[in-house]
Amino acid sequence: MSNKKQIGIIGATGYTGEELLRCLALHPQAEVAFVTSEKEAGASLASVYPHMPLYKDLQLITAQQAAARAVDLVFLCLPAGESAPLARAFVAKNIKVVDLGADFRFSDPAVYKAWYGMEHPAPDLLDRSVYGLPEWNRDKIRSAAIVGNPGCYPTSVQLAVLPFLKAGLLADAAIIVDSKSGVSGAGKSPTKTTHFVSVNENLSPYKAGRRHRHVGEMETHLQNFSGQKADIIFTPHLTPITRGMLSTIYVQTKTVMDKAQVLQVLKDAYTSEPFVHVLQEDYPSMKMAANSNYCFLGAEAPGGKTIILFSAIDNLGKGASSQAIQNMNIMLGLPEESGLLT
Amino acid sequence: MSNKKQIGIIGATGYTGEELLRCLALHPQAEVAFVTSEKEAGASLASVYPHMPLYKDLQLITAQQAAARAVDLVFLCLPAGESAPLARAFVAKNIKVVDLGADFRFSDPAVYKAWYGMEHPAPDLLDRSVYGLPEWNRDKIRSAAIVGNPGCYPTSVQLAVLPFLKAGLLADAAIIVDSKSGVSGAGKSPTKTTHFVSVNENLSPYKAGRRHRHVGEMETHLQNFSGQKADIIFTPHLTPITRGMLSTIYVQTKTVMDKAQVLQVLKDAYTSEPFVHVLQEDYPSMKMAANSNYCFLGAEAPGGKTIILFSAIDNLGKGASSQAIQNMNIMLGLPEESGLLT
Amino acid sequence: MSNKKQIGIIGATGYTGEELLRCLALHPQAEVAFVTSEKEAGASLASVYPHMPLYKDLQLITAQQAAARAVDLVFLCLPAGESAPLARAFVAKNIKVVDLGADFRFSDPAVYKAWYGMEHPAPDLLDRSVYGLPEWNRDKIRSAAIVGNPGCYPTSVQLAVLPFLKAGLLADAAIIVDSKSGVSGAGKSPTKTTHFVSVNENLSPYKAGRRHRHVGEMETHLQNFSGQKADIIFTPHLTPITRGMLSTIYVQTKTVMDKAQVLQVLKDAYTSEPFVHVLQEDYPSMKMAANSNYCFLGAEAPGGKTIILFSAIDNLGKGASSQAIQNMNIMLGLPEESGLLT
Amino acid sequence: MSNKKQIGIIGATGYTGEELLRCLALHPQAEVAFVTSEKEAGASLASVYPHMPLYKDLQLITAQQAAARAVDLVFLCLPAGESAPLARAFVAKNIKVVDLGADFRFSDPAVYKAWYGMEHPAPDLLDRSVYGLPEWNRDKIRSAAIVGNPGCYPTSVQLAVLPFLKAGLLADAAIIVDSKSGVSGAGKSPTKTTHFVSVNENLSPYKAGRRHRHVGEMETHLQNFSGQKADIIFTPHLTPITRGMLSTIYVQTKTVMDKAQVLQVLKDAYTSEPFVHVLQEDYPSMKMAANSNYCFLGAEAPGGKTIILFSAIDNLGKGASSQAIQNMNIMLGLPEESGLLT
Repeated sequence: MSNKKQIGIIGATGYTGEELLRCLALHPQAEVAFVTSEKEAGASLASVYPHMPLYKDLQLITAQQAAARAVDLVFLCLPAGESAPLARAFVAKNIKVVDLGADFRFSDPAVYKAWYGMEHPAPDLLDRSVYGLPEWNRDKIRSAAIVGNPGCYPTSVQLAVLPFLKAGLLADAAIIVDSKSGVSGAGKSPTKTTHFVSVNENLSPYKAGRRHRHVGEMETHLQNFSGQKADIIFTPHLTPITRGMLSTIYVQTKTVMDKAQVLQVLKDAYTSEPFVHVLQEDYPSMKMAANSNYCFLGAEAPGGKTIILFSAIDNLGKGASSQAIQNMNIMLGLPEESGLLT
Repeated sequence: MSNKKQIGIIGATGYTGEELLRCLALHPQAEVAFVTSEKEAGASLASVYPHMPLYKDLQLITAQQAAARAVDLVFLCLPAGESAPLARAFVAKNIKVVDLGADFRFSDPAVYKAWYGMEHPAPDLLDRSVYGLPEWNRDKIRSAAIVGNPGCYPTSVQLAVLPFLKAGLLADAAIIVDSKSGVSGAGKSPTKTTHFVSVNENLSPYKAGRRHRHVGEMETHLQNFSGQKADIIFTPHLTPITRGMLSTIYVQTKTVMDKAQVLQVLKDAYTSEPFVHVLQEDYPSMKMAANSNYCFLGAEAPGGKTIILFSAIDNLGKGASSQAIQNMNIMLGLPEESGLLT
Repeated sequence: MSNKKQIGIIGATGYTGEELLRCLALHPQAEVAFVTSEKEAGASLASVYPHMPLYKDLQLITAQQAAARAVDLVFLCLPAGESAPLARAFVAKNIKVVDLGADFRFSDPAVYKAWYGMEHPAPDLLDRSVYGLPEWNRDKIRSAAIVGNPGCYPTSVQLAVLPFLKAGLLADAAIIVDSKSGVSGAGKSPTKTTHFVSVNENLSPYKAGRRHRHVGEMETHLQNFSGQKADIIFTPHLTPITRGMLSTIYVQTKTVMDKAQVLQVLKDAYTSEPFVHVLQEDYPSMKMAANSNYCFLGAEAPGGKTIILFSAIDNLGKGASSQAIQNMNIMLGLPEESGLLT
Repeated sequence: MSNKKQIGIIGATGYTGEELLRCLALHPQAEVAFVTSEKEAGASLASVYPHMPLYKDLQLITAQQAAARAVDLVFLCLPAGESAPLARAFVAKNIKVVDLGADFRFSDPAVYKAWYGMEHPAPDLLDRSVYGLPEWNRDKIRSAAIVGNPGCYPTSVQLAVLPFLKAGLLADAAIIVDSKSGVSGAGKSPTKTTHFVSVNENLSPYKAGRRHRHVGEMETHLQNFSGQKADIIFTPHLTPITRGMLSTIYVQTKTVMDKAQVLQVLKDAYTSEPFVHVLQEDYPSMKMAANSNYCFLGAEAPGGKTIILFSAIDNLGKGASSQAIQNMNIMLGLPEESGLLT
């Protein structure tokens, strides 16, 4: 038998599950032990992903069948509210869990309820779970039973803003976040909104202001990690792009900073981070991060107290599945970059 | 009251209905009298098409309510099998009908049944209907009660091939049609196939060989108009494009023809046609015909008996709605180019 | 001879020239008398635009040859600095001029120099020219000899912001403009930046802060039309879209306003305007305005003093050529909507 | 020092060079020793590819500087005619060469001259070079000094057609190839043809019939590998896609074959090949092969003697750089799948 770490994927037929399979294909120390799908259980993975011949011998099973399998770590790719019972079962067997959904992104069930409109499904598990933003929470991730993998928008925003908040450089004003996302972030279910004709040659704002649930996640963890209160005004936009995310962020500094000073704050924060890179001249663009676990940061300082921060990630990469792999690497004691350096 | 021709649109909320509205907006001698939608009846058109403020005072009604309205002509934008009862009602009131669906594209109900898998819903109406390819059937369209507006693929293919078939220039071999279509041709219902992520950065063949219903329409009318039998091998492809269609067609000639001779056959056929244009040097590309009623034709002759014909239309334009307007103009005695010359 | 107004286009081979041709094709009271191109003079327009058979008999001439032609109005589609001598020659012959470039967008040559880095090429003509934003300057446009057609970004921003500035509703804080543009705004010259592979699946900020020349145009005319000083922080983004523009604008109000109040300000400003439409529920998206002269406005009010305004136009439509046609209609005493209502 | 194989890339700043870098990033037994660019020599690779932080310490050097470096294998990413002197220098030092250009794709210099319009620049090297289509030439590749990496279109076509030609199943008629390619195949130089606005919402045939140089490459090697003469009629199309290639191929069989029989021929040919996969139900689509070294094959048999073959690859993957890596693996005695199984 392989001495690679054995990994299970619950909900393998969505975009994040597919991306986990892609990431694990070249991982030198981990491999896929099982994949589940309630709808497609019994089918071969090849029938769902004919373009992944590497996995052609894997069979889709149900989550219940999966519960009997001994593995090292399980990824949960499920909608908010559905992860808890499975997480509990795996944790009981000392199997590590990375949840790509929203159920373990908040330590306070009241905050979860406020933004997700339902009671938290497993408040008892919250003290065994941590928020999986490795650059700001690496130590806790290392020993956590459950990691709540961050949302895509919050990942892009926190990585850009936290160095300034933490250093106490920001004035007490709303942080304005104008984000642009690829369509894969909206999930695989066909809807009027994701129809090709609706998206192509179009760019659409949605849930602007404080309507998107990720506002709660951003505010919670910006405060947790920096100790400073953060108010967010947030406009996400759907773009005619499959994968990618760019956040253009407008913050108020306490004193006037020039571009070099602004970039220095970012560079100081991430100098030894393998996946966060600060651009000196260029601004980050969405495509730079495509198909990778990288976050590219940049900035502009027009001369006043408003500065502009740019943060580019792949919404399915650092914004979801490859960040989940990064968390897996940390939790299993593997080199953090394993399988991710492209 | 306006002395413009009064036009009704049955099924105004799909792509072809929307395109009819766009075409009629600038038509100098016709205007929209009513629009129907069974699902959205009662709503204002503005709620469905907020981008068309011109029509903001129109109310969507049911087809039944529409039957009571006195108009000059009605467009039917309905799935195969659903047009017949409405067509019968309008014809009974001496209202002209252009059906953008498939129900009046075949004069022989047996052929309809062979390709559409159901009994023809109104065989009694067939002798009052004609096939609406104006360049090859103008005289009959002028006096018809019902016009069956051609399918998009058949329009692009017939316009290119008919001049050669009619002139007896083709050998008795299969005509190979490799067509590429914009996604709007697949309709507005969200499906896995039309999800942005499925289409973008992709190009997919489907229903290849003789599986697509348009093969029957092509073969029927190529023979009707030319008097020659035509066998079609057809591969449609879905492309990451909203609107447009390009057919690349491989035919066998009886004798070797050079490119100039091939182009001359096309030019002779369409010299006085306002909407069919033969390119001398360039090949047609899909975008040339976008948002217009034009068909652009071109050719290549590699030296043997296989020649290549190119035909570009807009699948919603000459492939559907603007061709329907062209038919309307002919049926109502208006200048054929009215509202269409862009 | 036609009794339509005779129109000349200087620089007809760029995207704005092509769009003027498209708009004029269906204009009931105006037609194209000549088209120029220094590079392509002598060629037929058909060789440049084979997809526009309507103009196939037009020959491209030089600007110098054009100077001898008697027409009613001339469009100048030239880079900054090149319009002045031609404008002078046409004005001297009492031919009206609409300049789609930047030379007549500023009444103060010092402001022009500050943003365009060169002396104004024709300061003597400035008092015969006016800024062509019809909704805010209609009366002056009516009698102007020269109209400086607004830039695309400034059009989208001014239409959204002016009603608030003018009504004195905004606090004295920077207006943050996050704009997204189609690639046609970058012009037709092939560059690394506009290569398909660079743009596709990408979204890139550029010239952020106060680096883009349109900042000067916005600030100048926001102040001119409202009497209030406006400071702009501006981030334009290049998007994988051919035509379209969306500006997401964050402004600080003096008092807290709810969404209904915000929308009412917009509706009051534009209630009788044919080309500016305020959306009640939805936010505007880029595609709504495609191929039209419309501007769609919308808003969100998250509860504090920061409100979000949305403005969607077609960068080649209301952002350039169709707005130029609107100006032409006003200058020539034609109905303002002529040829534009789709 | 690393005991990984040391690899040089001549011409690293084009799309194929960039893709080689991407492939080598995760290769367990090979790593990049140097990269060259005549234009950018002296710059850091990070300035050209800021999105590849892994290579941020590599400096671009000139080809002449590279000649002094001891490596195991060199990739040449150069235009036709420019590879020969470099190939000669490296071979003289017993450094293996994979040429991604056209100079070593033909063993007969007369055929090269006929299609490329110039004398072969190094006829003396031709007997040390072999054609690098591993599935059909693996043994010779193993011991070759120089491998001529196949063109993208020829790779897609040969893999589909060779099993039928070799088995003597095809009638003596032209093979009709209708191919669709992503834009990256046209190279990185900005041109009118590759401008985003020209490509987006468009699909354009070019060099149809026998005008494209790849016709010569296809015919040469179809005959070499099968012993049967092959006549090609070829229409390439440019599509609004960054990466990908789909060839739809119409061949005449000697006897009528059904779909199962057709697929069996393909499956028998590639049963043990890791990178060529035959689809049973679905047709291949372009995106299936994106970012991979896979070729997906499929077929349709409409009942007569014309059958349809589908072949999907990534034009930068199996059509260029990852196939070059596959050749490298074979030449250096590494596992053929190393670094490629995703």
